[in-house]
Amino acid sequence: MTELNVVKIGGAVLENKTDLNQFLNDFANLPGYKILVHGGGRTATQLSEKLNIPTVMVGGRRITDASTLEIVTMVYGGLINRTAVSELECRGINALGVTGADLNLIESVKRPVKDGIDYGFVGDVVAVNSSMICKLLDLNITPVFSPITHDRKGQLLNTNADTIASEIAIALSGYMNVTLTFCLEKPGVLANPDDNNSVIKTITSVDFKHLKEKGVISQGMIPKVENALKAVEKGVKKVIIKSFNCVNNELSGTHIS
Amino acid sequence: MTELNVVKIGGAVLENKTDLNQFLNDFANLPGYKILVHGGGRTATQLSEKLNIPTVMVGGRRITDASTLEIVTMVYGGLINRTAVSELECRGINALGVTGADLNLIESVKRPVKDGIDYGFVGDVVAVNSSMICKLLDLNITPVFSPITHDRKGQLLNTNADTIASEIAIALSGYMNVTLTFCLEKPGVLANPDDNNSVIKTITSVDFKHLKEKGVISQGMIPKVENALKAVEKGVKKVIIKSFNCVNNELSGTHIS
Repeated sequence: MTELNVVKIGGAVLENKTDLNQFLNDFANLPGYKILVHGGGRTATQLSEKLNIPTVMVGGRRITDASTLEIVTMVYGGLINRTAVSELECRGINALGVTGADLNLIESVKRPVKDGIDYGFVGDVVAVNSSMICKLLDLNITPVFSPITHDRKGQLLNTNADTIASEIAIALSGYMNVTLTFCLEKPGVLANPDDNNSVIKTITSVDFKHLKEKGVISQGMIPKVENALKAVEKGVKKVIIKSFNCVNNELSGTHIS
Repeated sequence: MTELNVVKIGGAVLENKTDLNQFLNDFANLPGYKILVHGGGRTATQLSEKLNIPTVMVGGRRITDASTLEIVTMVYGGLINRTAVSELECRGINALGVTGADLNLIESVKRPVKDGIDYGFVGDVVAVNSSMICKLLDLNITPVFSPITHDRKGQLLNTNADTIASEIAIALSGYMNVTLTFCLEKPGVLANPDDNNSVIKTITSVDFKHLKEKGVISQGMIPKVENALKAVEKGVKKVIIKSFNCVNNELSGTHIS
């Protein structure tokens, strides 16, 4: 089967020109089919501040009213996405910047109000258009996904980038040997958050339960590892959480199994 | 030969939800292959104002410093482009929102300083990737172009939307019977700017010279008609300047020949 790398890169790396260049060099050198998924939350928050639009987060997720949807569509779907494409093109990659609305690549539903929390224009993924993504890959195209989806009724929806990466990897694992990599500033999931040498080499679902109970895995790392475990359970061959600066080093980081 | 419609829509129509919906309904109903090119200058100017970034125009063209490039990348490449795609998708169109950087579809060069005017990050088109556009059309994809291009060295460049529409139409006229339509709020080029019933039915290059001398064609209409005439000269079958609300009425508007 064909090899496919799905790589998710977060906002912190995107903001630092030097880090981003190093990451994109490494990503461009990955062999075979590849897909990039990016975040951009920090840049969106900065623009919101400049426009005096309050940023409200609940459990690490952005409450997305109409003004905030415009901001994330501009920042994720425009600035970050188009810049990454341009940078990849000059590295010889035939890159195509998309949202889930483009070619109906990712359909989602507006998250229902639950426990009194209305996330606004936030989408939960319901379908990935695998056949169209395969057609693009077969044209030697590298899709670059921004974390915006749509409901097929004309509504764009803000969608978690880790989830998008994970859902794409799962959807394509029926057709290809997929490696899903979540890139961080840190070298992986750490046993001691202050010690970059304390990378946990492998995490299973049983390990995760214990590590969560002990508080070793906490906050934003919890949904990331949950996304990773779900991907493994649903057929993704390899799932790795690692530093952005060693994308093409297979052994580094935390392997989820 | 296959028929292709290249339609350019301006910022004023994009801003009015009712007008935009009517236009998109008509565009979606156009038969055969089609490409949409949009502007968005007014929305970019509004965002610049909110961010206290001065807008400087010279001869109708935006001086594009680094901050302004970020704004147009967000507004054209993000907000307007992704919204249009989502709206077309819910009308059954397999739409793909692109800039010239995506798939290296349009390469440009940064405009050199001339007569003391430095336009900043503004691009002049040097190449249209016709073969890739044809591949997309053959996949039944409708490309939606935002007026951003790149220099293949990692630099995005702000580029006039009329010029992009015209250059795409010219590049594809070797492969298809291309109709290029510039959509306005007005019903065409008017003999009397205050009378919407005074549409000039046809304009040739000789007519243009006279109409310009007499001041009938002035300001922003001059480069538009120049783009239109250039397209006809370079092999585009039909070039029409007309109202946004009659895209699929072949007889309306001003025909350039």
